[in-house]
Amino acid sequence: MNVAVLGVGLIGGSIGLAARGRLGARVTGYDPDAATLARATEVGAVDQACETVGDACAGAEIIFCAGPVGALPDLVAGALEACDDGAVVTDVGSTKLDLVTRLEQAGRLAEGFIGGHPLAGAETSGVENARADLFEGARWYLTPTEHSGGVHYDRLQRAIADIGARPQAIDADTHDRVMAEVSHLPHVLANVLVNEAARALAEESERLPEVGPSFRDTTRVAGANPALWTEILLSNREAVAGGIDSLAEQLKAVGEMLRAEDSARLSEWIESARDDRRRLLEAELTGGPVVELRVVVPNRPGVVAELALALGRAGVNIEDMTLHPAADMSSGAVSLWIAGDEEADRAVRLIADLGYPATRGT
Amino acid sequence: MNVAVLGVGLIGGSIGLAARGRLGARVTGYDPDAATLARATEVGAVDQACETVGDACAGAEIIFCAGPVGALPDLVAGALEACDDGAVVTDVGSTKLDLVTRLEQAGRLAEGFIGGHPLAGAETSGVENARADLFEGARWYLTPTEHSGGVHYDRLQRAIADIGARPQAIDADTHDRVMAEVSHLPHVLANVLVNEAARALAEESERLPEVGPSFRDTTRVAGANPALWTEILLSNREAVAGGIDSLAEQLKAVGEMLRAEDSARLSEWIESARDDRRRLLEAELTGGPVVELRVVVPNRPGVVAELALALGRAGVNIEDMTLHPAADMSSGAVSLWIAGDEEADRAVRLIADLGYPATRGT
Repeated sequence: MNVAVLGVGLIGGSIGLAARGRLGARVTGYDPDAATLARATEVGAVDQACETVGDACAGAEIIFCAGPVGALPDLVAGALEACDDGAVVTDVGSTKLDLVTRLEQAGRLAEGFIGGHPLAGAETSGVENARADLFEGARWYLTPTEHSGGVHYDRLQRAIADIGARPQAIDADTHDRVMAEVSHLPHVLANVLVNEAARALAEESERLPEVGPSFRDTTRVAGANPALWTEILLSNREAVAGGIDSLAEQLKAVGEMLRAEDSARLSEWIESARDDRRRLLEAELTGGPVVELRVVVPNRPGVVAELALALGRAGVNIEDMTLHPAADMSSGAVSLWIAGDEEADRAVRLIADLGYPATRGT
Repeated sequence: MNVAVLGVGLIGGSIGLAARGRLGARVTGYDPDAATLARATEVGAVDQACETVGDACAGAEIIFCAGPVGALPDLVAGALEACDDGAVVTDVGSTKLDLVTRLEQAGRLAEGFIGGHPLAGAETSGVENARADLFEGARWYLTPTEHSGGVHYDRLQRAIADIGARPQAIDADTHDRVMAEVSHLPHVLANVLVNEAARALAEESERLPEVGPSFRDTTRVAGANPALWTEILLSNREAVAGGIDSLAEQLKAVGEMLRAEDSARLSEWIESARDDRRRLLEAELTGGPVVELRVVVPNRPGVVAELALALGRAGVNIEDMTLHPAADMSSGAVSLWIAGDEEADRAVRLIADLGYPATRGT
């Protein structure tokens, strides 16, 4: 099989590595940045570096467009124009409807185009971090249109499954509304909260106060890659703006509960958030419902290792972990998320054996 | 010195342990829950368990009221009525102005009362997790009023410094406005975002989608202890409601930027969030600016231990850590926060020696 990758950063480079390693494909690569293309060749992500989109697409049966969201309409249109008859052209952008709309307006929506979005790689970037197993087990949304060919879809979804991902078809507009909720709005809120805190605290004459763990967690993604995120938010502006309206309405309702001192409704609202979060998080997990454990430990070098080793030796995997250091970092609590009730019970016993108190979260 | 602790859960129990261990104090304890009081005695948090507030306060020079926020007005009023002349009565509630106002309205605002709020212990609860070093290095806000006596303040702040905390005087209303920004609003937003996502996704007919790390981080504190948080939010309702109004305004502005497709303003807004967050987080750190490292690792038992051990052996402490597992948990990225530029560079080299790529966050 011949595969072309247009844009060979983290995602494109990883596709190249996976296509070569797992599909036995010959991979041609193109990137507008010559240094990135050279680096991709060095790390073995492409067999042949090409100077033009046309050269990369010639003879390819699947063409992955892996540029930034704002560059995708032109890149995909160029690939559709350059590719052989019967080739399938896909992309890996974080939003899907905007691209389809633009292609349609340009009269480019051909049977060979099927949008795509792998849920992987958000935590880093650059071809130097590319790896063949980046998509292992990852959801990979595919958004065929009414124009998309069945043969094309079949070939694309099989290739994606063969590189270890889990393809799933979804309407482009549904995809974008879902992503607005679970990814784009969290980024918007993190930014808004940081701006609000900075504005309000600047009005106090004192030095900035200590910031608690809730602020740190809630704003973790604030300020993430401004160029990238401006493009993502703009390309999904209707769904995000709609979500923003809804959030503002909800905030207004909470403000009213507070001003009315309505403790019953406030309490119900917090309880429903607790139930909703649990349900949302459980949906993504493979090993059963996840249980949160809280462990109080001294915060010296080696303690996290000691905990992780004790669980690791017993074969208990830690799905997620957060440290809550005390103000002077001398001690603190560790939150561990363990999949499965029995595994969590085992973890509690293993941690207790180390002499640290561990309690199950509610 | 004689110290009384009224309410002997995590905070009260830790005060008892610290007062006995570090001040050499004799500690009397009271709790409305007999089992909690018995447990506090067992773990050595109190020398003498008392059946009434009056018994506990008799002879005490400092009285710590460590009940839930909603119970504090009555508890503090009772302590002020029962205590010896010259005793100082303080509390550990998360909000301060409401308590002062209620005491004032009841004609109870005496020279012996000074409000307090240690920033510690939010991550767990219960006297079984109490420890003498819970407050080591922690900020402990004190909110004297115009009625508070100088001798009282001096005695209280010295005791707090002697148990290892860092006392700082602050106006009750400033305290509450600051806490609204860095603690209460993050909780409100986490709840609102979870509710919004649950509402919007329920409208889709498909099963719930995978939830990304941004959603997980942003909503970490959603649904935290509904009874406790209802009281905290209500007792600071003016500042929180004001912050909510401001957040709603900002969200509206972001919605307008999106609908106007104003990429320049969107980009500026994200950049300002990045700068603000860095500034806010640096204010709380003791070891210099914190550097975020991203490490790509296989997500098998033992890897986190391996990383933590390598850094621990070299004396590099991890200030904070978050795992970003891949969808199937087979691999993922680890974010590590290391205080200080040079320490971060050392950490990168140590991690590279293990064969994992590590990059510094921006």
